[in-house]
Amino acid sequence: MPKRKICVVVTARPSYSRIKSALTAIQNHPDLELQLVIAGSALLDRYGNAVDFIEKDGFPIAAKVFMVLEGENPTTMAKTTGLGVMELTNVFYNLKPDAVITIADRFETIATSIAAAYQNIPLVHIQGGEVTGSIDEKVRHANTKLADLHLVSSDDARERVIKLGESPEMVINTGCPSIDLAKEIHETPNLDFNPLEKYGGVGANLDWKNGYIVVMQHPVTTEYKESKKHIQETLKAVKNLDYPTFWFWPNVDAGSDGTSNGIRAFRELEQPKNIHFFKNMEPLDFLKLLSNSKALVGNSSAGLRECAYLGLPVVNIGNRQFRRSRAENVTDVSYSQIEIEKAIKMAITSEKFESSTIYGNGNAGTKIAEILATTELTFSKTITY
Amino acid sequence: MPKRKICVVVTARPSYSRIKSALTAIQNHPDLELQLVIAGSALLDRYGNAVDFIEKDGFPIAAKVFMVLEGENPTTMAKTTGLGVMELTNVFYNLKPDAVITIADRFETIATSIAAAYQNIPLVHIQGGEVTGSIDEKVRHANTKLADLHLVSSDDARERVIKLGESPEMVINTGCPSIDLAKEIHETPNLDFNPLEKYGGVGANLDWKNGYIVVMQHPVTTEYKESKKHIQETLKAVKNLDYPTFWFWPNVDAGSDGTSNGIRAFRELEQPKNIHFFKNMEPLDFLKLLSNSKALVGNSSAGLRECAYLGLPVVNIGNRQFRRSRAENVTDVSYSQIEIEKAIKMAITSEKFESSTIYGNGNAGTKIAEILATTELTFSKTITY
Amino acid sequence: MPKRKICVVVTARPSYSRIKSALTAIQNHPDLELQLVIAGSALLDRYGNAVDFIEKDGFPIAAKVFMVLEGENPTTMAKTTGLGVMELTNVFYNLKPDAVITIADRFETIATSIAAAYQNIPLVHIQGGEVTGSIDEKVRHANTKLADLHLVSSDDARERVIKLGESPEMVINTGCPSIDLAKEIHETPNLDFNPLEKYGGVGANLDWKNGYIVVMQHPVTTEYKESKKHIQETLKAVKNLDYPTFWFWPNVDAGSDGTSNGIRAFRELEQPKNIHFFKNMEPLDFLKLLSNSKALVGNSSAGLRECAYLGLPVVNIGNRQFRRSRAENVTDVSYSQIEIEKAIKMAITSEKFESSTIYGNGNAGTKIAEILATTELTFSKTITY
Amino acid sequence: MPKRKICVVVTARPSYSRIKSALTAIQNHPDLELQLVIAGSALLDRYGNAVDFIEKDGFPIAAKVFMVLEGENPTTMAKTTGLGVMELTNVFYNLKPDAVITIADRFETIATSIAAAYQNIPLVHIQGGEVTGSIDEKVRHANTKLADLHLVSSDDARERVIKLGESPEMVINTGCPSIDLAKEIHETPNLDFNPLEKYGGVGANLDWKNGYIVVMQHPVTTEYKESKKHIQETLKAVKNLDYPTFWFWPNVDAGSDGTSNGIRAFRELEQPKNIHFFKNMEPLDFLKLLSNSKALVGNSSAGLRECAYLGLPVVNIGNRQFRRSRAENVTDVSYSQIEIEKAIKMAITSEKFESSTIYGNGNAGTKIAEILATTELTFSKTITY
Repeated sequence: MPKRKICVVVTARPSYSRIKSALTAIQNHPDLELQLVIAGSALLDRYGNAVDFIEKDGFPIAAKVFMVLEGENPTTMAKTTGLGVMELTNVFYNLKPDAVITIADRFETIATSIAAAYQNIPLVHIQGGEVTGSIDEKVRHANTKLADLHLVSSDDARERVIKLGESPEMVINTGCPSIDLAKEIHETPNLDFNPLEKYGGVGANLDWKNGYIVVMQHPVTTEYKESKKHIQETLKAVKNLDYPTFWFWPNVDAGSDGTSNGIRAFRELEQPKNIHFFKNMEPLDFLKLLSNSKALVGNSSAGLRECAYLGLPVVNIGNRQFRRSRAENVTDVSYSQIEIEKAIKMAITSEKFESSTIYGNGNAGTKIAEILATTELTFSKTITY
Repeated sequence: MPKRKICVVVTARPSYSRIKSALTAIQNHPDLELQLVIAGSALLDRYGNAVDFIEKDGFPIAAKVFMVLEGENPTTMAKTTGLGVMELTNVFYNLKPDAVITIADRFETIATSIAAAYQNIPLVHIQGGEVTGSIDEKVRHANTKLADLHLVSSDDARERVIKLGESPEMVINTGCPSIDLAKEIHETPNLDFNPLEKYGGVGANLDWKNGYIVVMQHPVTTEYKESKKHIQETLKAVKNLDYPTFWFWPNVDAGSDGTSNGIRAFRELEQPKNIHFFKNMEPLDFLKLLSNSKALVGNSSAGLRECAYLGLPVVNIGNRQFRRSRAENVTDVSYSQIEIEKAIKMAITSEKFESSTIYGNGNAGTKIAEILATTELTFSKTITY
Repeated sequence: MPKRKICVVVTARPSYSRIKSALTAIQNHPDLELQLVIAGSALLDRYGNAVDFIEKDGFPIAAKVFMVLEGENPTTMAKTTGLGVMELTNVFYNLKPDAVITIADRFETIATSIAAAYQNIPLVHIQGGEVTGSIDEKVRHANTKLADLHLVSSDDARERVIKLGESPEMVINTGCPSIDLAKEIHETPNLDFNPLEKYGGVGANLDWKNGYIVVMQHPVTTEYKESKKHIQETLKAVKNLDYPTFWFWPNVDAGSDGTSNGIRAFRELEQPKNIHFFKNMEPLDFLKLLSNSKALVGNSSAGLRECAYLGLPVVNIGNRQFRRSRAENVTDVSYSQIEIEKAIKMAITSEKFESSTIYGNGNAGTKIAEILATTELTFSKTITY
Repeated sequence: MPKRKICVVVTARPSYSRIKSALTAIQNHPDLELQLVIAGSALLDRYGNAVDFIEKDGFPIAAKVFMVLEGENPTTMAKTTGLGVMELTNVFYNLKPDAVITIADRFETIATSIAAAYQNIPLVHIQGGEVTGSIDEKVRHANTKLADLHLVSSDDARERVIKLGESPEMVINTGCPSIDLAKEIHETPNLDFNPLEKYGGVGANLDWKNGYIVVMQHPVTTEYKESKKHIQETLKAVKNLDYPTFWFWPNVDAGSDGTSNGIRAFRELEQPKNIHFFKNMEPLDFLKLLSNSKALVGNSSAGLRECAYLGLPVVNIGNRQFRRSRAENVTDVSYSQIEIEKAIKMAITSEKFESSTIYGNGNAGTKIAEILATTELTFSKTITY
C-alpha cells in the first residue's frame, strides 16, 4: 500500500512552532510521507527567515511559495491571500497530496483551505475551535467550515467545533503540538546557549544572567492604525522598569508597519539601555529562553499555550487573545503603560505556576500522525443540523 | 448625512435573479447608493452574458472584473477564486463601500467575502444558512463565518445561522429576492413573448404552444468527472418522451465541460427533434417561461425557490439540492433515465400545486434595502458560544 | 559533468509543431536534459488539447500551467500574460534550468521571456527576426531584446536580429524545426489514415479521396471586432466552391470568439455539405493531410513555412502574415469572398511548386540541440551599437 | 473635441523626478487630461513613500496599485512584474486612456508596456535608447519594441532607437524632464531648508554647512548576491574620509536587501559619525541638496543626467551606468574602497564643471505635452527593415 502523502503548509514563523512535533511524527510514521510547503513570511528575512531553521532541523521542503505583497495594510493582506490561493493551488495540483493540513488562524491560512477544498483534497485543520478577537476569529471558523477533519488543542475547542455543525467523530482533541516542545525543554530546563552570541540582534548588551523578561507583541489587524500607539505604551513601560528584556520583532501582518515603526522610532530616540532585540529564534531555543525568564509580556499566543504548560507568568496586553482559554498564569491588561508596568512588576516577583495541561500533555505530534495514518479521509460533508 | 454605499458583487447569471429586486430597492432607497460590480462568468458570452441583461435593466455598473481561468476543472476553479480575491480587493479599495454584499454559495463568492472582510468592510451575506451537497455547502457556511450581517431566505435558514454562532439580532429572514420576481410575474402570468423569436438559440423549431417543459441541469463539482454520464441520462429521458422542451446550457463550474460536451455530442449524434437550446434569458422572461410550463427538470435551485412560490411541478435530479428546504412541488430522482422519464410524465399530467411561501412572500428586496439603510454596520464579531 | 537542463515552454498547439523535432533532439542528446512545460491553451480542450498529443508522443511533462483567462478579448489576453509571468516564474524557480526556450511570437511567449530573464536564466528565442502584422510583431522583437541566444529560421531573419543590436555570434540560422517534420512526411507522402475515422470532428461526411482543400484561419488580434465578418467571407467562398474541405477551428486569441462564433453561426444556418470541422490533429498527421491536399487556405504560418518546403499552393488571407518571407507557393488575397474563391480555384488546378528551403532543409532540431549543448550560456548582454 | 487622456504610470521614487515636469505640462495643456497611476514601490513607506510627495505637489491620483511581492530577489521581481501586468491591465481597462506613458527601464516598467500594448492602447516610451548594464538594458529595449512613440533624452538615444527599427518620425528627442527640474533650481541655487530638520532621517547629527557629499548607491540586479560586499566598500571609504555625508537608502530591487542589510549592519557596528541617512526627499529639495554639495557618489543615474546639467562632480561606482552617455563631470571607479576614496577626495577639491546639455536644456516637459497633444497616436507598427 502506498504511503499517504500529507502536505503541511507553514506560512509563518509561529506556525512552525505550532506544528514542528507533528512534522517529525509524520516524517517518522511508516505509513505517511511528509510534503512540507514553506510559504509567505516564513521565507522572508524581514520576518526571521523561519525557513532557515526548518531546513536546519532537517525537514526536506517540497515547495517554496513567495506570496507576500508589500504594504502591510489590509489591502495587501487580502491580496496576499488571493495570491496564496493561486500559488498553493498549483502546488497541490503538482504534489497530489492525500490530505492537506492548514494551521490555526492567520489570515493567509484560508488560502491553504480554499486551494485544497476546491480541488477535492481532504483538508485537515489544526487548532480550530478557539476564540479570539480580530480577523483571526473569522478566519479560524471559516477554516473549520472548509475543513473535513479537525484536530483541536483543547476540550473547549472540540466542543465549539462540534457546535459549529461538524460531525463529532471528525473532531479530535490531540492537544497542541507546541506543548510537545514545551514538554521537551521542560525536562531539560537550563539555558544552554548565550542568546546574544547565538542570535546577534541589535540593541543593549544585556546582563541577563540574574533575571530577564521576554516581550513579543504583534499588531492587531482590526486596529492597525493604532498599532504604533499601542506598542509605545509597552515600550515606555519596559524602559521605565529598567529590567533586562529580550524583545522579538512582530510577524508580518497589517499594521506590523505601525508596530515595527513604533519600535524603530523609540530605539532611535530613547536608546533604551535594558532592551535587546531579536528577529527570530529556533523554536526550542525560544522555549528555553521563556522557561528561564521571569515573565512573557505582549500578546503572543505562546503566553496562553506553551506558558500554561511551563507555568510561566504572562502579561497579556490588549484583545488579541480575547476569550481564548487560559490557565491561571495569565494576567490581562489593556494598552496602558501604567497597567503594563504594574503587571510586569508583579510577574517578576511571582513564583512559577503549576503546569497546566489545558492545551495538551505533550504527545500531540504522535497523536496527529497516527490519526492521519488511520482515519478515513473524505472531502465532502454536510452540516450536522 | 451621506448615503451609505452598498457594493453588490454579481458573479454569475443565476445570482442576478437572486438579487435583482434588492438591487432595485437599494437604488431607489433615499439613504443608499448602489455600487454594482459584475464579475466572473456574468461577463462571459459562453455563459449567457448576464451583463447585457443587467445593463438593459438600467443598473449602472461600477466595475467589471474578468477573473475566470479557462479549464473548467477544480484547479482552475480554485485559481479563479484566488484571482477574484486579488481583483475584488482592488475594486473595494477604490470604491470604498460602507458594506459589501456577497450572494449565496457559488465557489467564487468567498472571494467577495475575503476581499471585504480582510479590508475591514462590513460584509452582508444573502441566502446563508441553507443546506446542499457539494462544494457549495462548504463555501456557504464559510461565507457565514466571514460575514457580519446575515439576510437569509427562510426560517429554517435563520435558525441554522444562529446555531453557527452568529448573534440572533444580526440574522434576519427577509425571504429570497428571487420570490419577488416570481410574485411579479405571478400577477401577470401570460407568456407575452415568443421564446424562439426573442432568444434565438439552436436546435429544433418547437411547437410549444400546447405545452412544454424546461430543463436546466448544472454539473455537480464534487462529481465533475461524471457530469457527462449524468447529463446523458437526462438527455435520453427527454428525447424519449418526445415532448416539447426548452433546455438551458449550464453555468460555468468545474465539470461544465463534461455537461456541455455531453449535450453537444448528443445533439450532433441524435439531433433530438423535441429540444430547443438557449444560453440565457432575462430573469423575468425565464420566470414567465417557467410559469407557463408543465414542469421544470434538472437541478436548478429555481426548482426549490421560485417554483415553490409558483406551485410548479419540479423533477429534481441528483444531489445538488440535497437537504435544501423544499415544498411539496418537488419530486427527487437519481441520475437514471427511467426514473427521470417516469417523474416527468407524472409532472406533465399533474395539476399545479398551492403557492408556498417557505422562501418568502415577495417583498424581500425592499426589506433588504431597509435593513441596509438602518442597521448598525460593523466588521468585528465573536462567536456567541 | 551534469547535463544541461533545457526548459522548453509550449503554450499552444501550433508552437508544438514548431518545436517538436527539437524536443526529440534535446531528449536524445547525451549532454542535455529536457524539461518540458505545457501551458496556456495547449492544456485546453477547447483549443485541441495539444497536451494529449505531446504525452502520446512520449515526452515527459515537467509542469503544467493553467493560465488562460476567459473572455478572449485584449484585456484577458493581457491578464493571461501577467498570470503567465507569475506562474512560469514559479516553474523556473523550482526546475532551475540552465536555459529556457521561448518560441516565436504568440502574445503569451513574452511571459516565458520575462520569467527567465528576470531570474537570470539564459533565454533562448526560437524563430525571432521575422516580420508580420499585428501584436505578434511587437512581441517577437521584444522577445529578441530579452533573449540571450537567437536560433532563427532563415537568413533574412538572422540579418534582422543582428540589425536589432544582437551580437552576430549569438544569432544562428538553424532553420525551422517545423520543416524537419515536413521533410519526414515528404519522404513517405501517402495519407496513411482516414481523417474522419481517426479524428471524428463534426460536419459533412466528406468524400475526400478525389481531392480536397484544408482551411485554417485565425483571428487577427488588432482587428478582433472584425473577426466574424472576415471568417464569413471565407466560409461563403468555400461553401460556394462546393469542393471537399477540412476546416480547423482557430487557436485561442483575442477575437477567436468572433471567428468561432462566425463558424458556429454559419454551420447552424447554412449546414454546408462540403465542409468537415476538426479541432486538432497530431502534427505529423496534419502535415500528411496538407501534403495530400490541393491547397491550404487561411492565414496559418504553416502556409509560409511547411508549405514552402512541401511546394503546396497556399491562399493566404489578410494581413496576419504581412511581410513574412514567402516562397512562390503563396497567393495573397484580402478578406473578400470573390478574391478568395478565385484564388482557391486557381490553386486547386495548379501544379505543386518546387520545394523551397527558405525556412530550412530539415535538420533544425539536431542543430538546435547541438548548439544548446555547446554554446556558452549567459544572461547578460549589451546592445552592439 | 474631447481632451486626450494621457495615462502616466509612476512605479518608483526616481521615476517621479524623471517625469514631474511633464506631468505639470500635461496637466496644464488645454487639450490633454492627465491620468496619473501610482504603483509599486512608489506607494511603500520602506522606499520613501513617493506618493506623499506627489500628492503634496497637487497631482490628483487616478489609481493606486499595490504590486510589490516581498523577498527582493529575482523571483519576486519577476512575480511583481507579472502581477503588475494584471493590475495595470485592469486600470487601463477602466480609465480608457488615449495613450499610456511608460518611463525608462526599471524592471516593472515592462508591465505598463504589456498592459497597454496588448489592449491596443498607443504606448509612449520615455527615455528609451540609452545603454547600461544589468537587466535594465534588456527591459529598456524591450519597452522600445512594444512602444509606438519614443520620446528620448539625447541625440545618441534617438539614433539608437531608430537603429532598433523604429520609424524616425516616431522618435523625438525632447530632452529629459529631470533636467527641467535641474534648470529650475539652478536658477535659484541656495539651499533654502535644513535637511536634518525637514526630513529627519537617522544617524549622525551632521555639521554640513561647510561642505558635504551625497551618496546614493542601488543594488545591481544581475549581481544581487554581491550587493552587500559592494556597499561595504563604499561605506568604508566614506567613513574613512570622515567628511559630512548625506546617504540615501536604495530603491526596491532584487538585492536591495543585500544593500540595505549591508548599510544597517555597518551602522550598528561602526556607528559612523559623519553619515546621516535619509529615506527620501522631494525631487526639488534633492536637487538643491545636490547642487550645494561637493559631489555625488554611488551609481544613481542622476549623476549622469541632472549632475551633467548642474556641472557637479560625480563618483560613479561599478557598472550600473555602463555605457550610458556622460559628460566630463563623471569619474568612473570600480567597487573598491581605495578607488572610491581617492575619487571622492579629488571630487571634493574639484571646481564645478561647465553645465552640459547632453540630456536636454530644460524644457522637456512642455515639449512632451505638446507632442502628446498633436502627434497622431497609433498602436500598430512594423519594423522598418
